[in-house]
Amino acid sequence: MSWTRLIRFVAKDTKTYYGNAILPPGTTDIGKARSANIINGSPWSSNYIVTDRIAEITHLLPPIALADCTTLRCLGLNYRAHAVESNLPIPKSPILFYKPGTALAAPFSDIPVPFMAQEHDGLDYECELVVVIGRDAKDVSEEEALDYVAGYCVGNDVSHRAWQIELGGGQWSLGKGFDGWAPLGPGIVSTALIPDPSKLRIQTRVNGETMQDSNTKDLIFGVKETLSFLSGGTTLRAGDVIFTGTPQGVGMGRNPKLWLKDGDFVEVELEGVGTCGNKVVFEKGKAKL
Amino acid sequence: MSWTRLIRFVAKDTKTYYGNAILPPGTTDIGKARSANIINGSPWSSNYIVTDRIAEITHLLPPIALADCTTLRCLGLNYRAHAVESNLPIPKSPILFYKPGTALAAPFSDIPVPFMAQEHDGLDYECELVVVIGRDAKDVSEEEALDYVAGYCVGNDVSHRAWQIELGGGQWSLGKGFDGWAPLGPGIVSTALIPDPSKLRIQTRVNGETMQDSNTKDLIFGVKETLSFLSGGTTLRAGDVIFTGTPQGVGMGRNPKLWLKDGDFVEVELEGVGTCGNKVVFEKGKAKL
Repeated sequence: MSWTRLIRFVAKDTKTYYGNAILPPGTTDIGKARSANIINGSPWSSNYIVTDRIAEITHLLPPIALADCTTLRCLGLNYRAHAVESNLPIPKSPILFYKPGTALAAPFSDIPVPFMAQEHDGLDYECELVVVIGRDAKDVSEEEALDYVAGYCVGNDVSHRAWQIELGGGQWSLGKGFDGWAPLGPGIVSTALIPDPSKLRIQTRVNGETMQDSNTKDLIFGVKETLSFLSGGTTLRAGDVIFTGTPQGVGMGRNPKLWLKDGDFVEVELEGVGTCGNKVVFEKGKAKL
Repeated sequence: MSWTRLIRFVAKDTKTYYGNAILPPGTTDIGKARSANIINGSPWSSNYIVTDRIAEITHLLPPIALADCTTLRCLGLNYRAHAVESNLPIPKSPILFYKPGTALAAPFSDIPVPFMAQEHDGLDYECELVVVIGRDAKDVSEEEALDYVAGYCVGNDVSHRAWQIELGGGQWSLGKGFDGWAPLGPGIVSTALIPDPSKLRIQTRVNGETMQDSNTKDLIFGVKETLSFLSGGTTLRAGDVIFTGTPQGVGMGRNPKLWLKDGDFVEVELEGVGTCGNKVVFEKGKAKL
């Protein structure tokens, strides 16, 4: 049996496991799972087994261990209405940047905001459909692209607009790459359950208020096009994740602009997958070095 | 005993080892080593041992295994004369972008050029001082920064200017991130042998002709400043590498511009470390997907 809703979690026995989430009746939100079938072996190889052993979940971890998550790719400006709100032209090909592995964070972890990101305004949220690569892909066509996908989850591409845009010299990575700035989860739903990722509702709420509410059908470059393009001359590895861009409604695009504050609670939700909910925590103490 | 010139290599017994290079008399170029003391355990932990066992080198691999190299960070526009030749202002803080791990390449491997990078002009070289992180660093001061450095090597930040600048939507990663576009080596020289990285001659030759010839003293942000800045709110992990930017003389900055061609041989050399020499090989066959 293959996994269909992959999670990583700390169990009541205090050990860490990969597991196949068991959902309560009436929900598809993996974050609501209270137990899971333990997986033996690495789910990123072909040698894993979904066992009959059931463990109770104490708390969820990122659905991919840092050691298994080889690369975090992200796309910019990949929803039509978001390109419009950003006053930028529709891109001719996917715009790529990276986050480091240390940005990876659990679905309900805090988002730590370091001092250098507190000195300027600009802390923002971005709900995104995240594609998880299941086997190594290089030079794949759009037609075969989905064969290389393990599944999908939702992510928050936490961004600091001042560092991303003005202070970072035009390169977006610095202002999006701080520790814990890529909450991911709550689990990964396999392509068996989501055969078509191009019609999923995606939302962000801040302190309960809806800020982004769109659908992956507004993606400029869909999953097939993105994966085929990015695999040109570049090996996408099993365990790589691709943040596919965010729809309209980010704080930067609002009038007046809305920046996240210390203590805000941000939820990103993807239809059929669930919700990541993360509290913004400004780091105290250490001033500029 | 700690390593002083770390290499990774295939030995005559066809096995792969980390080793401490043994240099022939009269050279500091690690690429000229023919044998090495085998290292047991991971040189990226504190539990390794440089053994008395000596192995003959068949060929060198990247000095960090892909599994050990957690993140490749790169800086742009970090030499004064290169900022001038690029017609861009001197940056106020380091400009950061990333390459994926799959860009990592051996010191004498070919540089594969995929079809999408053959369709447009713009293939270029960039010799760079590369800093290798020895232990996890977060929020470190400039004064303590060098304590977190394992050593230095030379790298070629192979770049495709059309994809980097015009076709990539302004984000540099795509045009610099193809498989094998970060040749690195020939080995890592420890901080015990290079206590001061701010006065090293650095050069590029194409088919034997000198194209770049500068010194790390022209760096805008030196190793201490770079490491302290990048560690702000972000954990730099043992095994991370930082390409610190390239001096003047790149193909893009010449008049007329000089683009690398199929079969060209590019050498990047760093004083006290050695030379990486890589042949440009245009991939045949597979046309646009």
